[in-house]
Amino acid sequence: MPTKLWEKDYDLDQKIADFTVGRDRELDLELAPFDILGSLAHVTMLEEVGLIDAGAARRCKEKMKALYQEAVAGNFVIEDGVEDVHSQVELLLTRELGDDGKKIHSGRSRNDQVLVDLRLYFRHRIRGIVERTAELSRTLTNLSEEHKDKLIPGYTHLQVAMVSSFGLWFGAYAEALVDDLRMWQGVYEVTDQNPLGSAAGYGSSFPLNRDRTTELLGFRAPVVNVVAAQMGRGKTELLMAMAIASLAQTIGKMAMDVCLYSSQNFGFLQLPGELTTGSSIMPHKKNPDVFELLRGRCNLLQSLPAQIAQLTTNLPSGYHRDFQLLKEAIFPALDQLEDGLDIALYALPRTSVRAQELPTDPRYTYLYSVEAVNNLVLEGVPFRDAYMQVGRDIENGTFVPPTDLKHTHLGSLGNLGNERIRTKLSDALAGFNFSRADDALTTLAGL
Amino acid sequence: MPTKLWEKDYDLDQKIADFTVGRDRELDLELAPFDILGSLAHVTMLEEVGLIDAGAARRCKEKMKALYQEAVAGNFVIEDGVEDVHSQVELLLTRELGDDGKKIHSGRSRNDQVLVDLRLYFRHRIRGIVERTAELSRTLTNLSEEHKDKLIPGYTHLQVAMVSSFGLWFGAYAEALVDDLRMWQGVYEVTDQNPLGSAAGYGSSFPLNRDRTTELLGFRAPVVNVVAAQMGRGKTELLMAMAIASLAQTIGKMAMDVCLYSSQNFGFLQLPGELTTGSSIMPHKKNPDVFELLRGRCNLLQSLPAQIAQLTTNLPSGYHRDFQLLKEAIFPALDQLEDGLDIALYALPRTSVRAQELPTDPRYTYLYSVEAVNNLVLEGVPFRDAYMQVGRDIENGTFVPPTDLKHTHLGSLGNLGNERIRTKLSDALAGFNFSRADDALTTLAGL
Amino acid sequence: MPTKLWEKDYDLDQKIADFTVGRDRELDLELAPFDILGSLAHVTMLEEVGLIDAGAARRCKEKMKALYQEAVAGNFVIEDGVEDVHSQVELLLTRELGDDGKKIHSGRSRNDQVLVDLRLYFRHRIRGIVERTAELSRTLTNLSEEHKDKLIPGYTHLQVAMVSSFGLWFGAYAEALVDDLRMWQGVYEVTDQNPLGSAAGYGSSFPLNRDRTTELLGFRAPVVNVVAAQMGRGKTELLMAMAIASLAQTIGKMAMDVCLYSSQNFGFLQLPGELTTGSSIMPHKKNPDVFELLRGRCNLLQSLPAQIAQLTTNLPSGYHRDFQLLKEAIFPALDQLEDGLDIALYALPRTSVRAQELPTDPRYTYLYSVEAVNNLVLEGVPFRDAYMQVGRDIENGTFVPPTDLKHTHLGSLGNLGNERIRTKLSDALAGFNFSRADDALTTLAGL
Amino acid sequence: MPTKLWEKDYDLDQKIADFTVGRDRELDLELAPFDILGSLAHVTMLEEVGLIDAGAARRCKEKMKALYQEAVAGNFVIEDGVEDVHSQVELLLTRELGDDGKKIHSGRSRNDQVLVDLRLYFRHRIRGIVERTAELSRTLTNLSEEHKDKLIPGYTHLQVAMVSSFGLWFGAYAEALVDDLRMWQGVYEVTDQNPLGSAAGYGSSFPLNRDRTTELLGFRAPVVNVVAAQMGRGKTELLMAMAIASLAQTIGKMAMDVCLYSSQNFGFLQLPGELTTGSSIMPHKKNPDVFELLRGRCNLLQSLPAQIAQLTTNLPSGYHRDFQLLKEAIFPALDQLEDGLDIALYALPRTSVRAQELPTDPRYTYLYSVEAVNNLVLEGVPFRDAYMQVGRDIENGTFVPPTDLKHTHLGSLGNLGNERIRTKLSDALAGFNFSRADDALTTLAGL
Repeated sequence: MPTKLWEKDYDLDQKIADFTVGRDRELDLELAPFDILGSLAHVTMLEEVGLIDAGAARRCKEKMKALYQEAVAGNFVIEDGVEDVHSQVELLLTRELGDDGKKIHSGRSRNDQVLVDLRLYFRHRIRGIVERTAELSRTLTNLSEEHKDKLIPGYTHLQVAMVSSFGLWFGAYAEALVDDLRMWQGVYEVTDQNPLGSAAGYGSSFPLNRDRTTELLGFRAPVVNVVAAQMGRGKTELLMAMAIASLAQTIGKMAMDVCLYSSQNFGFLQLPGELTTGSSIMPHKKNPDVFELLRGRCNLLQSLPAQIAQLTTNLPSGYHRDFQLLKEAIFPALDQLEDGLDIALYALPRTSVRAQELPTDPRYTYLYSVEAVNNLVLEGVPFRDAYMQVGRDIENGTFVPPTDLKHTHLGSLGNLGNERIRTKLSDALAGFNFSRADDALTTLAGL
Repeated sequence: MPTKLWEKDYDLDQKIADFTVGRDRELDLELAPFDILGSLAHVTMLEEVGLIDAGAARRCKEKMKALYQEAVAGNFVIEDGVEDVHSQVELLLTRELGDDGKKIHSGRSRNDQVLVDLRLYFRHRIRGIVERTAELSRTLTNLSEEHKDKLIPGYTHLQVAMVSSFGLWFGAYAEALVDDLRMWQGVYEVTDQNPLGSAAGYGSSFPLNRDRTTELLGFRAPVVNVVAAQMGRGKTELLMAMAIASLAQTIGKMAMDVCLYSSQNFGFLQLPGELTTGSSIMPHKKNPDVFELLRGRCNLLQSLPAQIAQLTTNLPSGYHRDFQLLKEAIFPALDQLEDGLDIALYALPRTSVRAQELPTDPRYTYLYSVEAVNNLVLEGVPFRDAYMQVGRDIENGTFVPPTDLKHTHLGSLGNLGNERIRTKLSDALAGFNFSRADDALTTLAGL
Repeated sequence: MPTKLWEKDYDLDQKIADFTVGRDRELDLELAPFDILGSLAHVTMLEEVGLIDAGAARRCKEKMKALYQEAVAGNFVIEDGVEDVHSQVELLLTRELGDDGKKIHSGRSRNDQVLVDLRLYFRHRIRGIVERTAELSRTLTNLSEEHKDKLIPGYTHLQVAMVSSFGLWFGAYAEALVDDLRMWQGVYEVTDQNPLGSAAGYGSSFPLNRDRTTELLGFRAPVVNVVAAQMGRGKTELLMAMAIASLAQTIGKMAMDVCLYSSQNFGFLQLPGELTTGSSIMPHKKNPDVFELLRGRCNLLQSLPAQIAQLTTNLPSGYHRDFQLLKEAIFPALDQLEDGLDIALYALPRTSVRAQELPTDPRYTYLYSVEAVNNLVLEGVPFRDAYMQVGRDIENGTFVPPTDLKHTHLGSLGNLGNERIRTKLSDALAGFNFSRADDALTTLAGL
Repeated sequence: MPTKLWEKDYDLDQKIADFTVGRDRELDLELAPFDILGSLAHVTMLEEVGLIDAGAARRCKEKMKALYQEAVAGNFVIEDGVEDVHSQVELLLTRELGDDGKKIHSGRSRNDQVLVDLRLYFRHRIRGIVERTAELSRTLTNLSEEHKDKLIPGYTHLQVAMVSSFGLWFGAYAEALVDDLRMWQGVYEVTDQNPLGSAAGYGSSFPLNRDRTTELLGFRAPVVNVVAAQMGRGKTELLMAMAIASLAQTIGKMAMDVCLYSSQNFGFLQLPGELTTGSSIMPHKKNPDVFELLRGRCNLLQSLPAQIAQLTTNLPSGYHRDFQLLKEAIFPALDQLEDGLDIALYALPRTSVRAQELPTDPRYTYLYSVEAVNNLVLEGVPFRDAYMQVGRDIENGTFVPPTDLKHTHLGSLGNLGNERIRTKLSDALAGFNFSRADDALTTLAGL
């Protein structure tokens, strides 16, 4: 029984075999449930168009539904010597069903098997990330409300600038995450299209019904052109990498803020002891490693688009084996991003915030200089003149900070607008139609 | 009269001044019309909330409407010694209106001036790119229809694989461009939000009406949180860079195909003489430089997200002067992308396609091996057995290609589905509400 | 017995512990032998400066020498719950030697432990890469000599340009690899400096003798300034990444050539069946996956500097936990580069070359146009006029290729200069003083 | 008179001409002196091997020496309609000398003209950067000595860790720059090789003497293989980009430190007013824009290897027009790096340092915890026990900092080792043989 779908009469050199299989057997395990779903849809359609008889179709589907349950339960295994998930599924079917098992490959190619696996898989992973991102945004909006009256300095150029607050700081990241969801929305629209039926990238002479597999798999549409379906390999990953990098940028920046604000020179945030790590030589150290690693992880993830672009650039149209390496770039990144979101969800609410004594701390006196200028303006002094006058007071050491803050406009200290941020989040989430995919796959798997 | 909005009593070192101004004066010219529109909206709102009297508001608006006309006509000049566009506008107003001119800066900062300028500018540029992309997609669908019967080999691993056609090849890029528009849609949603009112990133004690400026400038919503508004600097550019890179990936790949297919070793495409360049020593050369440069340009553009990420990583929240350099990364990229789209629109329809004699060219005989396998399958032979049988024929030199192609399913040789690709394009374009922005700005500028 | 060197009275949260340890325990195994060598040098020096008594030093050294043998044999284990290699070594020492074991940490920090581990490790890995690169260069020079008379077309712009040969093609990569070694030489000089004694990055109040540990570990010099020693973290990896990327660029380009030249449209190279892989649907396919994966791997490696830069940018001086992630970026890359060199060494000599019938193949006729021009020039016609004349012959279809090639100058078809390339290689290798490091470590380990 | 070296009978489309010439005419001006030197060497050699008669050679050389003087003086102009520097030089020669002028192109191609231009140009630019880097290292060593007794906190994880000093801080960057020079050394070795004689990348049938032009142009060796010479395009730029990025990493990190240390929350550094810029709304602001822009510039430069790699990846061997775009990536980067070095040289010595009151500032008390541990160790307490004891004192609030610092080992607070850093610098500089190039070019230009 061949363990490679393209086995020939000569032996593949073992050294070459090892090099070419690479990490496929390990990474393909993640694809197993989706590979089975893709084949379920394909076989269903093959029967409907008369390319496989009803009995064979039924036997294949029953076996595959059982395999799917195993795969979802984490019990799917790629046996030694089997090079990938597609070969393993076909091997299991053929072992049990003989020639009937072989028929599921009619009108297919490993190329479009992996294409459909990846799109189903990415669609699934996007959901996990989107839901965590939404949860983090909600958590941040809540923290913003909770700490809305606690003031901290706001900086520009890392210089003390104007009065800010924990309300503003937490809320800013809550809103930024909604922007990231807009990028995920774009990627989801692209991903949620069915490549099945493209075969090796040039279609098939079988009368496949591609709209039917599209419906069975819950995709919003087929990728129409079969060459376009193949070209989606690499491109889908590039767009995923971009959405990952976008989200990583937001979380990484927040982590940088946390690290800085936890420094003794700021002292705005304090992690509880059990969330810190120590030094092997300095007994006083309580280090915010968790946020440093979150920052570092997010920064590495920001380089993902460059990795994918570098891997795929200047490959002419048509499949190339280089695409195999996309999996090892993107799969761990998805895990790392989810882990990062989880750890942020866990650690942020456990971090103590420390409001600052702004007007009385000599480092922070000038935070109020704009208020002084604005007060003059409201008394009728033109802005530029008020600015010059306060500037002279500061130079002469005669500046007295007006500590009465009257920030009332939308999004400012006194009017955070968190309810509108929550609405923005709901609006963004409404763009993802996760239930269509869910419903279709549940039906397909016979659950 | 000061030429810097923050002029103090000591002189700025000239060497430092030159280094810090950098290319701002040159790049800011592109922002001039948008800077004026932002100020028009601000002044209108200031009057409505009572922060500036009706007369002064009227005089400012009249002058700014005139300046806007000049800026649109390309006649706006940043004078020697004036450091940026914001200073120049204020200078011109103050020169003519005296103290009234100074009032427009009430409740603002250069920080939110540039924020609103950039979002207005990007929104405008996105439209130009989206429209060109749509036009290119349409052109490609038309070329696909025109050349739908001209066959070429399809490759996998750069090896002759299965039969393809110019219909498939052109159509694939037509559809891929629609995917790119989905990314632009995500970026547009993010960009089309109003940062005005965030001042230096921490809001203002003036009772600004941010919803009103949102409406006046035709934004779909305000960026609610003022710290989020400031954090959009760098992030907006990162997302723009991603959408640029996504589109550049598609066009760059197409250009790579054109260069390869123009080689004598392929001979699928031929550029007319007037679109080629020659060699200084080889008199026979007609080189496809135009597509090589398009490819190279697109590849450079693919590195743009890495540039932006590298520039902004690990900057804590709050403004940093580093952000000034974003302009010189992103502005030329927008021009280059538009130029690339224009040159593709120009050169592709002028390129000759050459159908290949597939079955009779010994290089291409095996293109038909899958057809042979499929024919056996349709006769009832299990797929894997048919595969083995045809493989043996090939090894033994007894393979005879069946040249009758019956590709009928959606997106294949015989059923390109271009109409559905056109519909996809229309659907994607419907996501951009360019007219809201247009209408608002036309009204604001009094046109 | 504590399993963390900084154990405190409260428990570290398990979720945080898992997140922060990350892949350290797995990756640190590679560092084990070098960690032990670093500690051997440190203890030797501590004894010499009187900070540890002779008996304790002897016992520690004996135990560590035994551990070193185990580590080299691959038997070193990091036990469950122990967070890194440094903790494991100290744990083993303390278990056996009690308080004496604890003394080896005097005047150290995990920070400079990992710094010295990494430099020793990188120095070791550089040697493995340099030696493989040299071997590949030699292999290529030999192939160049072997195939020096086999002609192929030379291309510019992917257009048929002038006559080339396998002699030129193989020899070009042989020489390019020598350039890559020059970059490795630069990195080696930087890496081969001793950071030991920098403690947490700010030195120690113990009278450490840093020149002595430099000598014991066979480094060419100490990193003098302790803050500089700490700053080397991230920078060393960045420079390693650059040298990796440089070499990957050369090998990746060669692999691209192999893939292209293996296409039926070129047919210059043919891989034997056992080095190719097949298709699941196309029985005729023999795909050069090995070179595609080599190309893809090298292209991913080219993105390594961007990854490292992205991770480390804008971290102020002093240690940050983000640096831990450097290991997971750079360690696998070293393995992948070595694997790539090995597979190139294996596959290239097994690949068949096919000389082309240049003058009689109509695709290649114009390869000889420059010869025709040059012949006219040698007859006294000014170059530009000869160029115009041959150009007219080509346009009129009257061009007859002169097939007599007289390329005699250094580095051309008829005079490949491979001996000089071999000499360049020897010169480049002479810049690496691997034996100093070898001799020192052998002595230190008591082998 | 043709203005393109490859002019044919049909017109190049103007739109295509504009797109393909791009920024060449502007950027090529920088290459003019080097292009003339390359042609001077070529003509000298052509005469010596009998390919051009003595009179013609003399006339060409005289004219070119005059042109060289003009080019060095900045008076070389590329006329309207002339596409590049090579065409302009040939045009000027032919205008004056008629057919003699045309002869200089014998045995050449624009391809090897630009190759030799670029290597001469890069060699020249490397010198400028190396000399500035050395100067900056010396400046930093001097500042280290000047401020060696001024203490500041040292940080790990951005947490207060151990005592540091301005002596350590300045000295660290002085030494790091020497490491960067090692990378430049590697790049210089690669760059300083002569590609001339490779023609279009496949050599020439003329009996060129490539060793002679190597000598005339002061290169250390020829690139032997002509295909390797052509492959150096893109690779040389990649290596340049790496050395640029390496140096940018060091300077960018230093600038980040300066920005952070200038914050009111640190207050270690203060820029004089005339080196700062202000805010348009906050009259108190004195922002360190100069170091922010230096940081941002350096960070952008760190993305240069990714840009070059992205542009060149997967281009098969042989020239491609994409390489033209390398110039616009790398030329401005060289200017920006030099400007950055200049501004650092200017601004750093003008920046005030402020020693901190370490033991009495409550934020900094625990800086001395390691000293306390070490004191116990010197009294005989095992390190780990001493660590636990001091840790308990800190937890209980009974810790008293021992303020007597006894750091004496090489590279520490009390023994900065600046003299050894200076020696390292001298050693690194000795690796650059700039005078050979200088002497050769001076002779060649007849100066």
